[in-house]
Parts: sequence; structure tokens; C-alpha cells
Amino acid sequence: MRHRVVIIGAGFGGIRVARGLQGADVDVTLVDAHNFHTFQPLLYQVATAGLDTDDIAYPIRGIFRRSPVAVRVARVTAIDIEQRIVSTDRGEPLAYDTLVVAAGTVSHDFGIDGVAEHALPLKSVSDAVAIRNHLLDRFESAAIDGMQPGRLDVVICGGGPTGVEMAGGLRELYDRVLEHDYPELPVAEARITVVEMDDQVLPGFADHLRDRAAATLRHRSVDVVTGVAVGQVDAGVVELDDGRRLAADTVVWAAGVRAAPVAELLGIELGRQGRIVVGPDLSVPGHPELFAIGDIAIDPDHPLPQVAQPAIQGGRHVAAQIRRRLDGRDTEPFEYTDKGSMATIGRNEAVTEFPNGWTLAGRFGWLAWLGLHLVYLMGFRNRLNVLVNWAWNYLTYDRASRLLAPSDDD
Amino acid sequence: MRHRVVIIGAGFGGIRVARGLQGADVDVTLVDAHNFHTFQPLLYQVATAGLDTDDIAYPIRGIFRRSPVAVRVARVTAIDIEQRIVSTDRGEPLAYDTLVVAAGTVSHDFGIDGVAEHALPLKSVSDAVAIRNHLLDRFESAAIDGMQPGRLDVVICGGGPTGVEMAGGLRELYDRVLEHDYPELPVAEARITVVEMDDQVLPGFADHLRDRAAATLRHRSVDVVTGVAVGQVDAGVVELDDGRRLAADTVVWAAGVRAAPVAELLGIELGRQGRIVVGPDLSVPGHPELFAIGDIAIDPDHPLPQVAQPAIQGGRHVAAQIRRRLDGRDTEPFEYTDKGSMATIGRNEAVTEFPNGWTLAGRFGWLAWLGLHLVYLMGFRNRLNVLVNWAWNYLTYDRASRLLAPSDDD
Repeated sequence: MRHRVVIIGAGFGGIRVARGLQGADVDVTLVDAHNFHTFQPLLYQVATAGLDTDDIAYPIRGIFRRSPVAVRVARVTAIDIEQRIVSTDRGEPLAYDTLVVAAGTVSHDFGIDGVAEHALPLKSVSDAVAIRNHLLDRFESAAIDGMQPGRLDVVICGGGPTGVEMAGGLRELYDRVLEHDYPELPVAEARITVVEMDDQVLPGFADHLRDRAAATLRHRSVDVVTGVAVGQVDAGVVELDDGRRLAADTVVWAAGVRAAPVAELLGIELGRQGRIVVGPDLSVPGHPELFAIGDIAIDPDHPLPQVAQPAIQGGRHVAAQIRRRLDGRDTEPFEYTDKGSMATIGRNEAVTEFPNGWTLAGRFGWLAWLGLHLVYLMGFRNRLNVLVNWAWNYLTYDRASRLLAPSDDD
Repeated sequence: MRHRVVIIGAGFGGIRVARGLQGADVDVTLVDAHNFHTFQPLLYQVATAGLDTDDIAYPIRGIFRRSPVAVRVARVTAIDIEQRIVSTDRGEPLAYDTLVVAAGTVSHDFGIDGVAEHALPLKSVSDAVAIRNHLLDRFESAAIDGMQPGRLDVVICGGGPTGVEMAGGLRELYDRVLEHDYPELPVAEARITVVEMDDQVLPGFADHLRDRAAATLRHRSVDVVTGVAVGQVDAGVVELDDGRRLAADTVVWAAGVRAAPVAELLGIELGRQGRIVVGPDLSVPGHPELFAIGDIAIDPDHPLPQVAQPAIQGGRHVAAQIRRRLDGRDTEPFEYTDKGSMATIGRNEAVTEFPNGWTLAGRFGWLAWLGLHLVYLMGFRNRLNVLVNWAWNYLTYDRASRLLAPSDDD
């Protein structure tokens, strides 16, 4: 019988594992709750009406059209790592010889009151659509029922790349589009606030880039509040630990993540943020047949940032290790190549940090950001559509994706 | 006080009225339940994963960005034609001096059992997304739980342009995309059936075009059943009046429409299909301040087909009449210019009928169809995106919009 590989999660990591096994003498099954791969770094563009869902989501079966990967659109309900069986909510349990867990992370509220009830996460396509709908609904509400304090205001909890990019994109949406769409509303007075617990936004970036990002945000009329944590979230108000209260009908939670719940199904001791602890070759110690990659995994000796590159490179590495084992060879340790980091603050402005310490900011940083994201977006068609959409947004200051709840009933 | 015009419905007609009043000495309020205009003739492309929702929907406020039209996204709950007041489910009642009802039609089951419960209408963007999700879910179901009779089969009730275009688009989706996506399933054996009560599909078209359309559908493995009505619809089965039973997990209802319920709020006697009876100038007899246009209206002496052109031309006409009245002049009768009719059966095949009786079929008919729809699509960006999507679909036989329930929760 052929060696059976089950991959949980069709994100950056899982896709790369499956691709890396093409042509190998294995049966590959890819399990994901959705039938599409999500280009997560651009979720904020969907939330701010710059791109549509199709532009950043690609059907999994379309990716593996010409290769024999079995796709199962289902949720994992149980994992028996002794019997080597993965159970899902649809279909027969899947027996495996090698299991790769690449399920990523979910939004985490750190036990802060009211986050789950009143704040909107930004981790999935449906989250992004929900934020877009919520925002546009607030504007319609203000236009019909009149303005209320905080009605058009947004507080973004978390000043990492997601929070910063969301704030920049949102301010552009407000200034360039919604101000024209709603001439009757005081859109220019709407407050967009980023709250970051650390002493500056973009923790992990070089200090001068962090300062520049904060200065750019402030120059673009985004309030940047640093060095203070969120105490609790109520309907329409965010309370900070220093007692300040920020009124906002829209609260976006980009402050933290934890491992996807599937990690708990393994029945092993987990690391920080509930992540799966892996050894140098990305397998779980004591379980050479069990690998974990990307955001859901952590090698305590070499912790990596929870961004796309570790998942992509980890996925390629694990595929190579599975092949080595089939050839009777030992696994090799994973060597991560830092390719730098990037965050865009909107039109003509991004900060880029190269692994050698060089940095790039402003228009050239933005062009670098643009090119890289186009290259990494899956599928030629999406790339072309994204280019058309971005060119249109750039040239006209318009955004066409601002449809309110198109999946609601009539 | 300025003359107040309230327009109900932001479809082809309502948009043209508002546009036609630009620069006139009037206050215009456009009321629609959605914040976007829908390009209805291409709904079937969303349902068959060829285009995404954004491609055929355009934000209403974006259309009237540089002109002072008030937009209210709300449902009409009452109309008092004596006091001249329109009430909506959000905001204060709207007083009017002239009211234009352009709310279109809704799907109608003619009292046939089970249609409301088991058949999917195709009248709105959300309907189209629901059909797409339902279809893809059937395929996932078959892949995981195994095949059942009728699981991948589709019955389309109604052989007008919507039914024919839906059948053609669906067969292409099955043959070119889903057969590759689901190599484990007998996709080629899936039956797609169009049921038409009349003795041939496309009632209203020239006989030889109707025969050609039916022949093309059959050649492309679509079953065409004519001269028989649908008796009732149950879960997974359509029963015809002649006793035949067609098993199909997916039933699309494209057999008929009636006037949108807003017509009933007027409290006047209605015509066929619940449509608002209008006189030669498109105003309601006895109510010169009340106009109705498009699918929701009918002039019994000059009934027009329920397609885009009568709505577009009617909208322009009504805007001109309102201007005439403001100038103290009498209204003129509406003169409809027939621009012909069109239906596409998919790739390289469409039938076109010109008003002088000329007809066009096959590849040239298809190119004419393509060009016309691009010209009429609202907004340059959408047109460009649609062109990119269509070119991609045409060249690669792929379809990128096949995301399953992207607005569902994780």
C-alpha cells in the first residue's frame, strides 16, 4: 500500500507540502474547512473594500487540478496519533502514515471582557466581509437615523502589520470614497484609532521604520495610541487599561492569535499560544510521522514570526523530508531563510526591512510591497484582476467592492 | 420648496430616472433595499461561477457620486398615494411630489406545490450566490459521502433567456471545470434539464432561432423538455404534469415572475402578474404624479417584454416628463424603440434578433452578445474586470469564482 499523507489546512504551508509531494509515491489528502485557499496578507483589503473575496481566495481543487491530491472540505473533529487516524465531520475517518498539521491560528482575546461579543476579528474571508458589511451598515445607519457619537469611528486593537495596514486602508476608504458617497455625513471627523500595547506600532521592525509608520499614520489622521493595553470592550466603546474610553461603533480585533483548536486534538503538551512544539526537522518529538508547520507550530529554540514565509518554507521542507524518509534517508533540520518583512500604510507608503538590515520606506517600499504581493498571489487570473483593481483604485481613488451584505436575502 | 421626486428601485429603470433628472430643479431620493445596482442579465454567470458578485453589482452611491441624489438603503413598508408619502423600515417617511415606482419583479411560483421550499430562484445577487454554493456543496457532498441518484443533476424550470443561459453556463461549468476538479465523480453523466411549458424554448424569439437554441443545448448534452408544465417540486425531484419525475438535488426556478410586492402598497387595482397599470405617458391613470416603469409596469394597450430595454427607455422617458411638467408643459406618450433580443447558450453560441427581423446566430451572435453586455455594464472598472474574467474563462476553460459560502463563518 502506498504511503498516505494527510495534510490539515490549505494555507500557505499546507499547499506547499502538497505541491512538494507531486510525483512522489504517496497518496495525499488535503483537509480544510473551506474549498478555497486564502491569501491572508490581503484580507484587510477585502475588509476595506479595495479587493473582492475572489481576488484573494482560490479554489483548492483548482490549484491541484493536474495532480492527484484528494481534497476534503470538512472540519477535523478528532485525531488519534497512536492509531494514526484523522476524523472529520463529513466522510469516513482518514488513516495516515504521515500527518502534517498546518491549520494556522485563530483570533485570541486573551480573556479580555467583551472582545468575543463586540470586536470583529480579521482572520478569514468571512471575517473581512463581515467587517466591510458592518462598516457600510454604520454609514447607512448614520445617513438614515442620524449621527451618534462613535458611529463612524473605528478602533483597531493591535498595531502589528494587520492593524497598521487595516488603519491605512480604512482611512483611504473614508477619505477617498465614503466622504464622496456620503456628502451629508461628517466623514472627515470620523476617528480611526490604532491601539498598540508595545511602546510603538509594528513590534519587530527596526525602530526608525516603526517611528516612520506611526508618523505616517498620524499624518494621515489616524490616531496612534501606544504603550497601553485594551482593558475591555463594550458595545460601542473600548476601555483602555489607563482608564481612557474610546467610543467606536466598529472595533476590529487584530491584537493576538492562538493556535487553531485542532492542535488540542493531538492530546500532546502544547507550547506558547497553544502552538504545537516541534523539533529541528519540524516533526513532533517522539512522533517522527507527525509534522507541524507555519503559525500553528513553534520550535522553542528557534521561534519564527507568524507570517507567510515560515509556513511556505516549512511546507517545502516537510515535503522534502517525507520524500527523504521514503528513500530511507534521515530527515534534515529546517533552515529558515529570512526574506525580510513588510507593512504598507496605504497609497505610496510602505516600510520594508531586508534581512541584511537594509530598509526601504515610502514610495519605493510601496512598489516593492505591490510587486511581491502580486508575485505571491495564487493564480494568474487573480493576479491580473488584483492589478486591474489596484490600478483602478490608485488612479481614481474609487473602490468598487463596497457591496453591503450581498449574500443576505432579499 | 423644490419639487421632490422619490424613486423606488435602483435597477435599470430607477437609475435612468435619477440620471435623467441631473441638473433639474428637483430633490431626488432613490430608495432600494440594497446599496448596489444589479446587472440582472448576468446573474446566471454568478450562479455558474463565471463572474463574481462585484462584477455585476455596482454601489449606487458610486453611480451618483458627482450629483446630488439622496440614496436610502431601506425597504418600502407603506405608500400613501393621497398624502403622497412613502414610508420605509429605516428613517423618517419621505414626502414626494412625484413618485416613480421601478421596483421590478420577484420570482413567482404560480401556486405550484414545493417551489418555494425546494427550488432556487435567480432574481438577485444573493440568489445567484446561493445557487453557486448549493451546487458546489452538492459536489463536495458527493465526493465525501458518495453518489446518490440526482445528486449532481439540475432541473431548470423555465426555458426563457434566463433558463437557457443558465443551462448553457452550467454545462460549461460541469464539463470544463468541475469534471477536472472532481476526477472521482461521474460528472459527465450528470443531467442538466431545461423544462419549458411552451412548445419550444425562448418564447418570443423567431422560430428558427428557438429551434437552433434547443438543438445547441441538446448538442451540448442539455436535456430540453418542452410542451409540459411543472406539476410540483419535492425534495430532490421535479414532477411534470405528464407524470414524468426528474430526480435532481438542484432545482432552479426561472419559470415566472410577478410584480414586486411594493405594487400592492399603492392600493390601486393591478394588472396581469400584479403589475401596475399605466397610461401612454407611463403615469397611473388618475394619478399624474405617480409613474411606474420597467418590469413592474404594464400598459395593457402596449405590453412590453420584461427585459432591460423597456426599463432603460422608460426611465429616460419619465425623467423627461418630470422636466416637462416643471416647465409647465404636458407629458408626451412613451415611444418604445425595439432594439432586438438576445440569448447566449455559452461559448461561441448566441442567438440575436434585430428589430428589422434580421437574425444572427453562432459565433457572431455570441460576439454581439459579448460586446453589448460589456457596453451596458455599469462602471469602467467592472467592465475591465469582466473582460479579464471572460478572457480567462475563454482561454483556459477555468472559472475562478467557485468559492463555497465565503460569507459563512469559520
